[in-house]
Amino acid sequence: MAPDQPVTATLLVNCDDRTGIVAALATFVFSHGGNILDADQHAERDSGEFFMRLAWDLAGFDLGRDAIRAELTQLAQRFNLRWELTFSDHVPRMAVFATKASHCLYDLLLCQQIGDLGGRIVAVISNHDLLGDVCKHFDIPFTVIPVESTNKGKAEQRQLALLDSLDVDVVVLARYMQVLSADFVARWPDRIINIHHSFLPAFAGARPYHQAKERGVKIIGATAHYVTAELDQGPIIEQNVRRVSHRDEVEDLMRAGRDLEREVLTRAVRLHLQRRVLVSGNRTIVFG
Amino acid sequence: MAPDQPVTATLLVNCDDRTGIVAALATFVFSHGGNILDADQHAERDSGEFFMRLAWDLAGFDLGRDAIRAELTQLAQRFNLRWELTFSDHVPRMAVFATKASHCLYDLLLCQQIGDLGGRIVAVISNHDLLGDVCKHFDIPFTVIPVESTNKGKAEQRQLALLDSLDVDVVVLARYMQVLSADFVARWPDRIINIHHSFLPAFAGARPYHQAKERGVKIIGATAHYVTAELDQGPIIEQNVRRVSHRDEVEDLMRAGRDLEREVLTRAVRLHLQRRVLVSGNRTIVFG
Amino acid sequence: MAPDQPVTATLLVNCDDRTGIVAALATFVFSHGGNILDADQHAERDSGEFFMRLAWDLAGFDLGRDAIRAELTQLAQRFNLRWELTFSDHVPRMAVFATKASHCLYDLLLCQQIGDLGGRIVAVISNHDLLGDVCKHFDIPFTVIPVESTNKGKAEQRQLALLDSLDVDVVVLARYMQVLSADFVARWPDRIINIHHSFLPAFAGARPYHQAKERGVKIIGATAHYVTAELDQGPIIEQNVRRVSHRDEVEDLMRAGRDLEREVLTRAVRLHLQRRVLVSGNRTIVFG
Amino acid sequence: MAPDQPVTATLLVNCDDRTGIVAALATFVFSHGGNILDADQHAERDSGEFFMRLAWDLAGFDLGRDAIRAELTQLAQRFNLRWELTFSDHVPRMAVFATKASHCLYDLLLCQQIGDLGGRIVAVISNHDLLGDVCKHFDIPFTVIPVESTNKGKAEQRQLALLDSLDVDVVVLARYMQVLSADFVARWPDRIINIHHSFLPAFAGARPYHQAKERGVKIIGATAHYVTAELDQGPIIEQNVRRVSHRDEVEDLMRAGRDLEREVLTRAVRLHLQRRVLVSGNRTIVFG
Repeated sequence: MAPDQPVTATLLVNCDDRTGIVAALATFVFSHGGNILDADQHAERDSGEFFMRLAWDLAGFDLGRDAIRAELTQLAQRFNLRWELTFSDHVPRMAVFATKASHCLYDLLLCQQIGDLGGRIVAVISNHDLLGDVCKHFDIPFTVIPVESTNKGKAEQRQLALLDSLDVDVVVLARYMQVLSADFVARWPDRIINIHHSFLPAFAGARPYHQAKERGVKIIGATAHYVTAELDQGPIIEQNVRRVSHRDEVEDLMRAGRDLEREVLTRAVRLHLQRRVLVSGNRTIVFG
Repeated sequence: MAPDQPVTATLLVNCDDRTGIVAALATFVFSHGGNILDADQHAERDSGEFFMRLAWDLAGFDLGRDAIRAELTQLAQRFNLRWELTFSDHVPRMAVFATKASHCLYDLLLCQQIGDLGGRIVAVISNHDLLGDVCKHFDIPFTVIPVESTNKGKAEQRQLALLDSLDVDVVVLARYMQVLSADFVARWPDRIINIHHSFLPAFAGARPYHQAKERGVKIIGATAHYVTAELDQGPIIEQNVRRVSHRDEVEDLMRAGRDLEREVLTRAVRLHLQRRVLVSGNRTIVFG
Repeated sequence: MAPDQPVTATLLVNCDDRTGIVAALATFVFSHGGNILDADQHAERDSGEFFMRLAWDLAGFDLGRDAIRAELTQLAQRFNLRWELTFSDHVPRMAVFATKASHCLYDLLLCQQIGDLGGRIVAVISNHDLLGDVCKHFDIPFTVIPVESTNKGKAEQRQLALLDSLDVDVVVLARYMQVLSADFVARWPDRIINIHHSFLPAFAGARPYHQAKERGVKIIGATAHYVTAELDQGPIIEQNVRRVSHRDEVEDLMRAGRDLEREVLTRAVRLHLQRRVLVSGNRTIVFG
Repeated sequence: MAPDQPVTATLLVNCDDRTGIVAALATFVFSHGGNILDADQHAERDSGEFFMRLAWDLAGFDLGRDAIRAELTQLAQRFNLRWELTFSDHVPRMAVFATKASHCLYDLLLCQQIGDLGGRIVAVISNHDLLGDVCKHFDIPFTVIPVESTNKGKAEQRQLALLDSLDVDVVVLARYMQVLSADFVARWPDRIINIHHSFLPAFAGARPYHQAKERGVKIIGATAHYVTAELDQGPIIEQNVRRVSHRDEVEDLMRAGRDLEREVLTRAVRLHLQRRVLVSGNRTIVFG
């Protein structure tokens, strides 16, 4: 956030019965002198579920942050809301997990450098030392935590301790080639973002570009999703595809895939950091 | 609209200063027992302009249609709103203008046949008789009004008279190869939709596919827009593109163009009929 | 083919060792006075397999058709080629199988009407009578062959007899809601084209749009492929995708899906009819 | 090129009358023991022009490089060919011109780092010193040559001298904010690649994203093209587009534009370096 911009409050809301909610929330903001900057909502016809994102200007708002939370707690009880409130002067803190591939990491760092990311990368954690130079160039702390099949538990404890000590809000897996344990994932619900190197649902298992080549697909893709205990089955945040042909060898598919991966991951991270993603069950509502 | 669906009111709103509007409108709907089905809004940071689309269920609403209009008139004065209110049990009536090419006309008729169009095609008007068979197949009235360079004014008077007699709401130019006069256009502001056979802004003038071939473009497009007095300069509703290569001869580009044209036009017409398009100056806000 | 266009020969070739083939084939055409109109080839680095499509002008060619076949037979033995030769004055004969949905059928018929299909639809075969009117409008013979779970074998015999009697070259399943038996498929290798209503590989089984909605995918697709004994596993000819969002209800996904299905199927059929598709194992080489 | 890969010859050919050329060239390669790795050709129906790209393995070829050139010179006279021959062990040498924006430069450097570029960046030349750190990180020589309105000619002389001294094959303008003189351009025909920040043909002049916003376009683009004396009118090598909406402010369009620019420029540079681009008049044939 630029230092001279006014502070904004962003509220994400999710509930089952929507009658009167929009009016109640809009009146709440208006009656305290707030100016609604952006309101987006979605009512699902089939499930009846309701989703809303509301952003308003805190300049001139006559309630302090604790008072806002107190009023929202009351509204939440009345309407049975699930809600999340953030303020734009809190810059989310990210840790990026990576292994050897640099393309996704570079893209996130470049996005941050240009001031577009909407968060701050406070740590890059890798099980190899290869990406240290990249982090040094961008002046980002880099920590190697080796992961062997025999020390997975201990490695995760070190990772978790580091995340705690740095007060991290979101973890991004930027082609991190290790599977996180169910315990780790459970500690960070809807706060770990992974980039999967194919269009999901799609080729199960490893080497999707080889599978794509063998099957002669005409389009390949990449998918960013929240990590859940079930591998590659978490809520999808963003996807993109690119047309390919028989002329593309496996390595061409991998190159096109790298372009897709970095683009889709960075976009998903930005959507998350701007609080534009609501999770419901196993899918997301993205207020783009 | 299926006969058993409840009636919905849809309000499009546009104003310069948005303070309190969302709350006022949401409260208006809620206080009279309405259930907001869909609310979408957009505040433009640079211009300060504000746009909103609000749809609510009339089942259980305690105001009649005249009373709704009366209240909205008051709100409009207070907030200096431009507004438009429609009810879902009014099915918009369309006239399609065409010449010889059938692809866009077919697409609109097929979309109507399948129940997806959101409006009723009450007339097809052409300056040739070629498309009569198509209309007969779909059981749509077909009228030939010849247009010669010497009788343009009279032809337009016949067209306008027909539109009036049929109580038409929207005119769709489905590859109609005649330029409408400024007078005609002025009678139907933001209610005539044209399909332009290229990506706008783009090649000026005729034969865009020949120009595209000569220039070796790698992507071609089509653009649906509202018709204004200035040719091809009206507000853009929808666009799409397709990748092409040097292997595509002019006729291949034309075929790809036909696919784009019918798809983009039908989508634009549906967006308009669902009251998802707001015009401001020379551009549109599309609540997709 | 327009009546005044010269006749073209098109040769598709596939072999394992490519040394000298291009020279041999080019010399064959040249030495007999042929003018190569289009030559496209592809050598696969990993498998070593080689694919070629060669089209030349028969005007001025000093060999008759039988002599051409005789010479190609010799070349094929020398180079161990698999090959297929067609002449542009043979217009391929198509049968379209459909059930109730009309969108893919309409698209093929419109493409034929406009002279773009590259083949002739000689029969529409359906297990319902709903599409008779459409065929009548386009003046295409329509045959109802009911298919019940108890008469599948007999129904297929009637279908096969009709295809034989009409000298059909290719069968197109235009949302035909019946599974063909392995025997039927074996009789028409690489000559039955199906449109699958999702991006393959993807959601297994029925109702892909419901699955897509539940999983919150951001992109949907359609896939045209040759039919093999294994359901939905045949070589992919063409695919396309469209971006969707949480605002799209299942019926919106289905509508977008219909647009994709008709476009992808028609494009695949045209590619096949123009002899641009080579099958190798379970994938295709498409010389687009 | 990986050191253990065999050397390949790549021939680009362009002529007006194609009779016998494919046979002559294929026979030339075959009769000297060459193995054709890739042959792509295109005959333009309307203009009659013919284009071919032929790549073959030099392992086992019984002619030296000078002898190859001598034979091709003879063939060229016989068939009136324009031709260009390159060998894969010559790695093209690139100079990148940039000003302050880093996104395109980073993308080219990352592509080179990963071994995908197909050329070597031997110099980055800028009229500002801002990008020195980036070049240092990637260990690429960086030269500042200031350009003032009063010293343009002298600055270009310094640039040209540097290009000569470094034996540069291709110049890439990676968001270089200066117009090159006609003299400079004439010295480097079809060897200067520029990235234009919009879909061409499109908005003339500066600030295309502001124009796009004002016009409400639904799709934005970027175009890579060869530089000619006429600004932004040179042959188009590659283009891409992205869908946008009214929610995108000018800065969102600029961010999406940056993604497009870097992707399109890098792809165009790779196509050029792999000798896949043939220029004819004001358009390109791209053998992708």
